[in-house]
Amino acid sequence: MQISGRNKIPGKITELVVGDVMAKVVMEGPGGTELVAVITSDAAKELGLAVGKEVQALIKATEIMVIAG
Amino acid sequence: MQISGRNKIPGKITELVVGDVMAKVVMEGPGGTELVAVITSDAAKELGLAVGKEVQALIKATEIMVIAG
Amino acid sequence: MQISGRNKIPGKITELVVGDVMAKVVMEGPGGTELVAVITSDAAKELGLAVGKEVQALIKATEIMVIAG
Amino acid sequence: MQISGRNKIPGKITELVVGDVMAKVVMEGPGGTELVAVITSDAAKELGLAVGKEVQALIKATEIMVIAG
Amino acid sequence: MQISGRNKIPGKITELVVGDVMAKVVMEGPGGTELVAVITSDAAKELGLAVGKEVQALIKATEIMVIAG
Amino acid sequence: MQISGRNKIPGKITELVVGDVMAKVVMEGPGGTELVAVITSDAAKELGLAVGKEVQALIKATEIMVIAG
Repeated sequence: MQISGRNKIPGKITELVVGDVMAKVVMEGPGGTELVAVITSDAAKELGLAVGKEVQALIKATEIMVIAG
Repeated sequence: MQISGRNKIPGKITELVVGDVMAKVVMEGPGGTELVAVITSDAAKELGLAVGKEVQALIKATEIMVIAG
Repeated sequence: MQISGRNKIPGKITELVVGDVMAKVVMEGPGGTELVAVITSDAAKELGLAVGKEVQALIKATEIMVIAG
Repeated sequence: MQISGRNKIPGKITELVVGDVMAKVVMEGPGGTELVAVITSDAAKELGLAVGKEVQALIKATEIMVIAG
Repeated sequence: MQISGRNKIPGKITELVVGDVMAKVVMEGPGGTELVAVITSDAAKELGLAVGKEVQALIKATEIMVIAG
Repeated sequence: MQISGRNKIPGKITELVVGDVMAKVVMEGPGGTELVAVITSDAAKELGLAVGKEVQALIKATEIMVIAG
Protein backbone atom coordinates (compact mmCIF):
# COMPACT_ATOMS: atom_id res chain seq x y z
CA MET A 1 0.00 0.00 0.00
CA GLN A 2 1.34 3.43 -1.01
CA ILE A 3 -0.12 6.66 0.35
CA SER A 4 0.20 10.02 -1.37
CA GLY A 5 0.70 11.83 1.93
CA ARG A 6 4.32 12.99 1.90
CA ASN A 7 5.03 12.92 5.63
CA LYS A 8 5.26 9.67 7.56
CA ILE A 9 7.05 10.18 10.87
CA PRO A 10 7.74 7.21 13.17
CA GLY A 11 6.91 7.62 16.83
CA LYS A 12 6.08 5.83 20.08
CA ILE A 13 2.88 6.75 21.90
CA THR A 14 3.63 8.45 25.22
CA GLU A 15 0.13 9.63 26.09
CA LEU A 16 -3.40 8.78 24.97
CA VAL A 17 -6.60 10.57 25.97
CA VAL A 18 -9.76 9.09 24.53
CA GLY A 19 -12.61 11.59 24.72
CA ASP A 20 -16.29 11.42 23.85
CA VAL A 21 -15.69 11.95 20.12
CA MET A 22 -12.01 12.83 19.69
CA ALA A 23 -8.81 11.34 21.06
CA LYS A 24 -5.45 12.98 21.65
CA VAL A 25 -2.41 10.87 20.74
CA VAL A 26 0.98 12.13 21.94
CA MET A 27 4.00 10.51 20.36
CA GLU A 28 7.75 10.78 20.80
CA GLY A 29 9.26 11.07 17.33
CA PRO A 30 12.84 11.11 16.03
CA GLY A 31 15.29 13.11 18.14
CA GLY A 32 12.75 13.25 20.96
CA THR A 33 10.40 15.51 18.99
CA GLU A 34 6.91 15.54 20.48
CA LEU A 35 4.08 14.97 18.02
CA VAL A 36 0.42 15.44 18.91
CA ALA A 37 -2.37 14.07 16.74
CA VAL A 38 -6.11 14.39 17.25
CA ILE A 39 -8.07 11.56 15.66
CA THR A 40 -11.50 10.10 16.31
CA SER A 41 -11.89 8.00 19.45
CA ASP A 42 -13.28 5.23 17.21
CA ALA A 43 -10.00 5.16 15.29
CA ALA A 44 -7.93 5.10 18.48
CA LYS A 45 -9.87 2.05 19.69
CA GLU A 46 -9.95 0.30 16.29
CA LEU A 47 -6.16 0.65 15.90
CA GLY A 48 -5.64 -0.57 19.45
CA LEU A 49 -3.59 2.51 20.32
CA ALA A 50 -1.95 2.45 23.73
CA VAL A 51 1.02 4.01 25.48
CA GLY A 52 4.21 2.35 24.28
CA LYS A 53 2.89 1.34 20.85
CA GLU A 54 5.07 2.15 17.80
CA VAL A 55 3.11 4.06 15.16
CA GLN A 56 3.58 6.58 12.37
CA ALA A 57 2.21 10.10 12.06
CA LEU A 58 0.80 10.64 8.55
CA ILE A 59 0.56 14.26 7.40
CA LYS A 60 -0.46 15.68 4.01
CA ALA A 61 2.07 18.27 2.73
CA THR A 62 -0.66 20.86 2.25
CA GLU A 63 -1.35 20.77 6.00
CA ILE A 64 2.12 21.97 7.02
CA MET A 65 2.93 25.64 7.54
CA VAL A 66 6.50 26.92 7.74
CA ILE A 67 7.82 29.27 10.41
CA ALA A 68 10.97 31.30 9.71
CA GLY A 69 13.03 33.42 12.10
CA MET B 1 3.96 34.92 20.35
CA GLN B 2 2.30 31.58 21.24
CA ILE B 3 0.56 29.46 18.62
CA SER B 4 -2.13 26.90 19.43
CA GLY B 5 -0.76 24.47 16.83
CA ARG B 6 0.68 21.57 18.84
CA ASN B 7 3.40 20.49 16.44
CA LYS B 8 6.47 22.60 15.78
CA ILE B 9 9.26 20.55 14.25
CA PRO B 10 12.67 22.12 13.52
CA GLY B 11 14.20 21.45 10.13
CA LYS B 12 16.64 22.69 7.51
CA ILE B 13 15.44 23.30 3.98
CA THR B 14 16.99 20.81 1.55
CA GLU B 15 14.85 21.53 -1.50
CA LEU B 16 12.57 24.36 -2.63
CA VAL B 17 10.37 24.40 -5.72
CA VAL B 18 8.44 27.62 -6.24
CA GLY B 19 5.55 27.06 -8.64
CA ASP B 20 2.98 29.36 -10.21
CA VAL B 21 0.75 29.38 -7.10
CA MET B 22 2.16 26.79 -4.69
CA ALA B 23 5.66 25.99 -3.48
CA LYS B 24 7.11 22.71 -2.21
CA VAL B 25 9.44 22.99 0.79
CA VAL B 26 11.45 19.89 1.68
CA MET B 27 13.12 19.94 5.07
CA GLU B 28 15.42 17.62 6.98
CA GLY B 29 14.02 17.28 10.47
CA PRO B 30 15.29 15.59 13.66
CA GLY B 31 16.92 12.21 13.14
CA GLY B 32 17.10 12.87 9.39
CA THR B 33 13.31 12.69 8.99
CA GLU B 34 12.19 14.22 5.70
CA LEU B 35 9.34 16.73 5.98
CA VAL B 36 7.51 18.13 2.96
CA ALA B 37 5.29 21.20 3.18
CA VAL B 38 3.26 22.85 0.45
CA ILE B 39 2.68 26.53 1.05
CA THR B 40 1.86 29.45 -1.23
CA SER B 41 4.68 30.72 -3.42
CA ASP B 42 3.99 34.19 -2.00
CA ALA B 43 4.76 32.88 1.49
CA ALA B 44 7.95 31.17 0.32
CA LYS B 45 9.18 34.45 -1.15
CA GLU B 46 8.00 36.61 1.76
CA LEU B 47 9.78 34.38 4.29
CA GLY B 48 12.91 34.36 2.15
CA LEU B 49 12.98 30.58 2.11
CA ALA B 50 16.05 29.01 0.52
CA VAL B 51 18.00 25.79 0.68
CA GLY B 52 20.01 25.69 3.89
CA LYS B 53 17.68 27.91 5.91
CA GLU B 54 16.67 26.73 9.41
CA VAL B 55 12.88 26.77 9.81
CA GLN B 56 10.11 25.03 11.74
CA ALA B 57 7.23 22.95 10.38
CA LEU B 58 3.97 24.01 12.09
CA ILE B 59 1.19 21.42 12.08
CA LYS B 60 -2.24 21.49 13.72
CA ALA B 61 -2.95 18.30 15.71
CA THR B 62 -6.22 17.73 13.88
CA GLU B 63 -4.28 17.42 10.61
CA ILE B 64 -2.27 14.37 11.71
CA MET B 65 -3.46 10.82 11.05
CA VAL B 66 -1.95 7.81 12.81
CA ILE B 67 -0.81 4.62 11.10
CA ALA B 68 -0.51 1.42 13.14
CA GLY B 69 1.01 -1.93 12.13
CA MET C 1 8.88 35.08 13.73
CA GLN C 2 7.24 34.83 10.29
CA ILE C 3 4.58 32.24 9.52
CA SER C 4 3.76 31.04 6.01
CA GLY C 5 0.03 30.92 6.78
CA ARG C 6 -1.51 33.71 4.70
CA ASN C 7 -4.46 34.59 6.94
CA LYS C 8 -4.00 36.26 10.31
CA ILE C 9 -7.22 37.84 11.50
CA PRO C 10 -7.33 39.82 14.77
CA GLY C 11 -10.17 39.08 17.16
CA LYS C 12 -11.33 39.22 20.78
CA ILE C 13 -12.51 36.04 22.47
CA THR C 14 -16.23 36.19 23.21
CA GLU C 15 -16.80 32.55 24.19
CA LEU C 16 -14.59 29.65 25.25
CA VAL C 17 -15.68 26.06 25.80
CA VAL C 18 -12.93 23.73 26.97
CA GLY C 19 -13.94 20.10 26.38
CA ASP C 20 -12.32 16.79 27.21
CA VAL C 21 -9.95 16.92 24.21
CA MET C 22 -11.01 19.88 22.07
CA ALA C 23 -11.90 23.47 22.85
CA LYS C 24 -14.15 25.88 20.97
CA VAL C 25 -12.89 29.48 20.74
CA VAL C 26 -15.37 32.08 19.50
CA MET C 27 -13.90 35.42 18.51
CA GLU C 28 -15.27 38.73 17.31
CA GLY C 29 -13.20 39.81 14.35
CA PRO C 30 -13.08 42.96 12.23
CA GLY C 31 -16.47 44.46 11.41
CA GLY C 32 -18.09 42.24 14.03
CA THR C 33 -17.43 39.07 12.05
CA GLU C 34 -17.77 35.97 14.19
CA LEU C 35 -14.87 33.51 13.95
CA VAL C 36 -14.96 30.04 15.49
CA ALA C 37 -11.82 27.96 15.96
CA VAL C 38 -11.52 24.47 17.38
CA ILE C 39 -8.13 23.79 18.94
CA THR C 40 -6.91 21.30 21.53
CA SER C 41 -7.92 21.99 25.13
CA ASP C 42 -4.21 21.76 26.02
CA ALA C 43 -3.50 24.68 23.68
CA ALA C 44 -6.36 26.73 25.09
CA LYS C 45 -4.94 26.29 28.62
CA GLU C 46 -1.30 26.77 27.60
CA LEU C 47 -2.12 30.05 25.81
CA GLY C 48 -4.19 31.22 28.76
CA LEU C 49 -7.19 31.84 26.53
CA ALA C 50 -10.14 33.54 28.21
CA VAL C 51 -13.11 35.66 27.27
CA GLY C 52 -11.94 39.20 26.51
CA LYS C 53 -8.43 38.23 25.40
CA GLU C 54 -7.12 39.74 22.12
CA VAL C 55 -5.82 37.02 19.80
CA GLN C 56 -5.35 36.26 16.11
CA ALA C 57 -6.95 33.53 14.00
CA LEU C 58 -4.27 31.85 11.86
CA ILE C 59 -5.56 30.08 8.75
CA LYS C 60 -3.64 28.37 5.92
CA ALA C 61 -4.83 29.53 2.48
CA THR C 62 -5.40 25.95 1.36
CA GLU C 63 -8.02 25.55 4.10
CA ILE C 64 -10.34 28.26 2.76
CA MET C 65 -13.14 27.49 0.34
CA VAL C 66 -14.94 30.21 -1.63
CA ILE C 67 -18.70 30.57 -1.94
CA ALA C 68 -20.14 32.54 -4.85
CA GLY C 69 -23.75 33.64 -5.44
CA MET D 1 -28.73 25.26 2.05
CA GLN D 2 -26.99 25.14 5.44
CA ILE D 3 -23.31 24.31 5.80
CA SER D 4 -21.74 23.00 8.97
CA GLY D 5 -18.60 25.11 8.47
CA ARG D 6 -18.67 27.71 11.22
CA ASN D 7 -16.86 30.53 9.44
CA LYS D 8 -18.38 32.39 6.53
CA ILE D 9 -16.63 35.70 5.94
CA PRO D 10 -17.85 38.11 3.24
CA GLY D 11 -15.25 39.60 0.94
CA LYS D 12 -14.59 41.16 -2.45
CA ILE D 13 -12.00 39.65 -4.75
CA THR D 14 -9.01 41.95 -5.18
CA GLU D 15 -6.64 39.55 -6.91
CA LEU D 16 -6.96 36.24 -8.75
CA VAL D 17 -4.14 34.07 -10.05
CA VAL D 18 -5.25 30.95 -11.90
CA GLY D 19 -2.40 28.44 -12.09
CA ASP D 20 -2.02 25.06 -13.77
CA VAL D 21 -3.85 23.20 -10.98
CA MET D 22 -4.41 25.68 -8.15
CA ALA D 23 -5.68 29.25 -8.04
CA LYS D 24 -4.99 31.99 -5.50
CA VAL D 25 -7.98 34.15 -4.54
CA VAL D 26 -7.25 37.31 -2.57
CA MET D 27 -10.22 38.98 -0.96
CA GLU D 28 -10.81 42.13 1.05
CA GLY D 29 -12.90 41.19 4.04
CA PRO D 30 -14.57 43.19 6.81
CA GLY D 31 -12.53 46.06 8.18
CA GLY D 32 -10.13 45.74 5.24
CA THR D 33 -8.83 42.38 6.42
CA GLU D 34 -7.00 40.55 3.63
CA LEU D 35 -8.06 36.93 3.10
CA VAL D 36 -6.20 34.53 0.83
CA ALA D 37 -7.73 31.25 -0.33
CA VAL D 38 -6.16 28.59 -2.51
CA ILE D 39 -8.73 26.54 -4.42
CA THR D 40 -8.58 24.47 -7.60
CA SER D 41 -8.36 26.40 -10.86
CA ASP D 42 -11.40 24.40 -12.03
CA ALA D 43 -13.43 25.83 -9.15
CA ALA D 44 -12.25 29.36 -9.84
CA LYS D 45 -13.43 29.05 -13.45
CA GLU D 46 -16.68 27.21 -12.60
CA LEU D 47 -17.65 29.89 -10.07
CA GLY D 48 -16.77 32.65 -12.52
CA LEU D 49 -14.45 34.27 -10.01
CA ALA D 50 -13.02 37.63 -11.06
CA VAL D 51 -11.62 40.75 -9.44
CA GLY D 52 -14.47 42.79 -7.98
CA LYS D 53 -16.79 39.85 -7.37
CA GLU D 54 -18.48 39.60 -3.94
CA VAL D 55 -17.94 36.18 -2.40
CA GLN D 56 -17.66 34.47 0.97
CA ALA D 57 -14.69 32.65 2.51
CA LEU D 58 -15.86 29.34 4.03
CA ILE D 59 -13.61 27.90 6.74
CA LYS D 60 -14.09 24.84 8.94
CA ALA D 61 -13.49 25.63 12.65
CA THR D 62 -10.98 22.80 12.96
CA GLU D 63 -8.76 24.53 10.39
CA ILE D 64 -8.22 27.67 12.46
CA MET D 65 -5.27 28.03 14.85
CA VAL D 66 -5.13 30.74 17.50
CA ILE D 67 -2.17 33.01 18.14
CA ALA D 68 -1.84 34.73 21.52
CA GLY D 69 0.59 37.42 22.60
CA MET E 1 -25.00 29.26 -4.07
CA GLN E 2 -21.86 27.68 -5.58
CA ILE E 3 -19.06 26.32 -3.41
CA SER E 4 -15.49 25.91 -4.60
CA GLY E 5 -15.11 22.63 -2.72
CA ARG E 6 -14.88 19.94 -5.43
CA ASN E 7 -16.41 17.03 -3.54
CA LYS E 8 -20.10 16.92 -2.64
CA ILE E 9 -21.21 13.41 -1.80
CA PRO E 10 -24.85 12.65 -0.98
CA GLY E 11 -25.54 10.51 2.06
CA LYS E 12 -28.10 9.57 4.71
CA ILE E 13 -27.16 9.91 8.38
CA THR E 14 -26.93 6.52 10.06
CA GLU E 15 -25.33 7.56 13.34
CA LEU E 16 -24.88 10.82 15.23
CA VAL E 17 -22.85 11.36 18.39
CA VAL E 18 -22.94 14.89 19.78
CA GLY E 19 -20.06 15.46 22.18
CA ASP E 20 -19.05 18.35 24.40
CA VAL E 21 -17.41 20.28 21.55
CA MET E 22 -17.34 17.98 18.51
CA ALA E 23 -19.92 15.72 16.91
CA LYS E 24 -19.45 12.57 14.83
CA VAL E 25 -21.75 12.21 11.82
CA VAL E 26 -21.82 8.82 10.11
CA MET E 27 -23.46 8.71 6.71
CA GLU E 28 -24.25 6.01 4.17
CA GLY E 29 -23.14 7.32 0.79
CA PRO E 30 -23.50 5.99 -2.77
CA GLY E 31 -23.00 2.25 -3.13
CA GLY E 32 -23.25 1.83 0.64
CA THR E 33 -19.96 3.65 1.25
CA GLU E 34 -19.62 4.75 4.86
CA LEU E 35 -18.62 8.38 5.37
CA VAL E 36 -17.65 9.83 8.74
CA ALA E 37 -17.47 13.57 9.37
CA VAL E 38 -16.48 15.38 12.54
CA ILE E 39 -18.05 18.81 12.84
CA THR E 40 -18.78 21.08 15.78
CA SER E 41 -21.69 20.07 18.00
CA ASP E 42 -23.09 23.57 17.46
CA ALA E 43 -23.27 22.89 13.72
CA ALA E 44 -24.91 19.51 14.25
CA LYS E 45 -27.65 21.14 16.34
CA GLU E 46 -28.02 24.21 14.08
CA LEU E 47 -28.47 22.01 10.98
CA GLY E 48 -30.93 19.79 12.85
CA LEU E 49 -28.93 16.70 12.01
CA ALA E 50 -30.55 13.41 12.99
CA VAL E 51 -30.42 9.78 11.96
CA GLY E 52 -32.27 9.32 8.69
CA LYS E 53 -31.69 12.85 7.39
CA GLU E 54 -30.42 13.24 3.81
CA VAL E 55 -27.31 15.45 3.66
CA GLN E 56 -24.16 15.99 1.61
CA ALA E 57 -20.54 15.58 2.64
CA LEU E 58 -18.51 18.59 1.44
CA ILE E 59 -14.77 18.01 1.06
CA LYS E 60 -12.05 20.32 -0.28
CA ALA E 61 -9.87 18.56 -2.90
CA THR E 62 -6.70 19.48 -1.01
CA GLU E 63 -7.90 17.41 1.94
CA ILE E 64 -8.02 14.12 0.04
CA MET E 65 -5.04 11.75 -0.05
CA VAL E 66 -4.79 8.89 -2.54
CA ILE E 67 -3.90 5.30 -1.67
CA ALA E 68 -2.55 3.02 -4.41
CA GLY E 69 -1.94 -0.73 -4.30
CA MET F 1 -1.30 -1.42 8.00
CA GLN F 2 -4.23 0.39 9.66
CA ILE F 3 -4.85 4.12 9.17
CA SER F 4 -6.82 6.25 11.60
CA GLY F 5 -8.45 8.21 8.75
CA ARG F 6 -12.11 7.19 8.81
CA ASN F 7 -12.91 7.58 5.13
CA LYS F 8 -11.49 5.27 2.49
CA ILE F 9 -13.48 5.45 -0.72
CA PRO F 10 -12.61 3.20 -3.69
CA GLY F 11 -12.38 4.84 -7.09
CA LYS F 12 -10.95 4.58 -10.60
CA ILE F 13 -8.89 7.48 -11.96
CA THR F 14 -10.68 9.19 -14.83
CA GLU F 15 -8.45 12.26 -15.16
CA LEU F 16 -4.96 13.25 -14.02
CA VAL F 17 -3.33 16.66 -14.37
CA VAL F 18 0.23 16.85 -13.09
CA GLY F 19 1.24 20.48 -12.49
CA ASP F 20 4.47 22.13 -11.45
CA VAL F 21 3.95 21.40 -7.74
CA MET F 22 0.43 20.00 -7.38
CA ALA F 23 -1.55 17.37 -9.26
CA LYS F 24 -5.30 16.98 -9.70
CA VAL F 25 -6.63 13.43 -9.50
CA VAL F 26 -10.23 12.87 -10.61
CA MET F 27 -11.77 9.56 -9.66
CA GLU F 28 -15.07 7.81 -10.28
CA GLY F 29 -16.26 6.44 -6.96
CA PRO F 30 -19.19 4.24 -5.93
CA GLY F 31 -22.45 4.99 -7.69
CA GLY F 32 -20.60 7.14 -10.22
CA THR F 33 -19.74 9.78 -7.63
CA GLU F 34 -16.95 12.06 -8.84
CA LEU F 35 -14.10 12.57 -6.37
CA VAL F 36 -11.35 15.15 -6.88
CA ALA F 37 -8.12 15.08 -4.90
CA VAL F 38 -5.20 17.48 -5.05
CA ILE F 39 -1.91 15.89 -4.03
CA THR F 40 1.71 16.73 -4.75
CA SER F 41 2.95 15.96 -8.26
CA ASP F 42 5.78 13.98 -6.62
CA ALA F 43 3.20 11.69 -5.00
CA ALA F 44 1.29 11.25 -8.25
CA LYS F 45 4.49 10.12 -9.99
CA GLU F 46 5.72 7.98 -7.07
CA LEU F 47 2.41 6.10 -6.88
CA GLY F 48 2.38 5.65 -10.64
CA LEU F 49 -1.06 7.20 -10.92
CA ALA F 50 -2.65 7.06 -14.36
CA VAL F 51 -6.10 7.10 -15.89
CA GLY F 52 -7.78 3.74 -15.34
CA LYS F 53 -5.90 2.88 -12.14
CA GLU F 54 -7.96 1.64 -9.16
CA VAL F 55 -7.16 3.65 -6.03
CA GLN F 56 -8.73 4.78 -2.76
CA ALA F 57 -9.48 8.31 -1.57
CA LEU F 58 -8.35 8.71 2.06
CA ILE F 59 -10.04 11.49 4.02
CA LYS F 60 -9.72 12.44 7.69
CA ALA F 61 -13.16 12.85 9.35
CA THR F 62 -12.25 16.32 10.60
CA GLU F 63 -11.89 17.48 6.99
CA ILE F 64 -15.49 16.78 6.03
CA MET F 65 -18.20 19.42 6.31
CA VAL F 66 -21.89 18.56 6.16
CA ILE F 67 -24.47 20.34 4.01
CA ALA F 68 -28.15 20.11 4.95
CA GLY F 69 -31.19 21.26 2.95
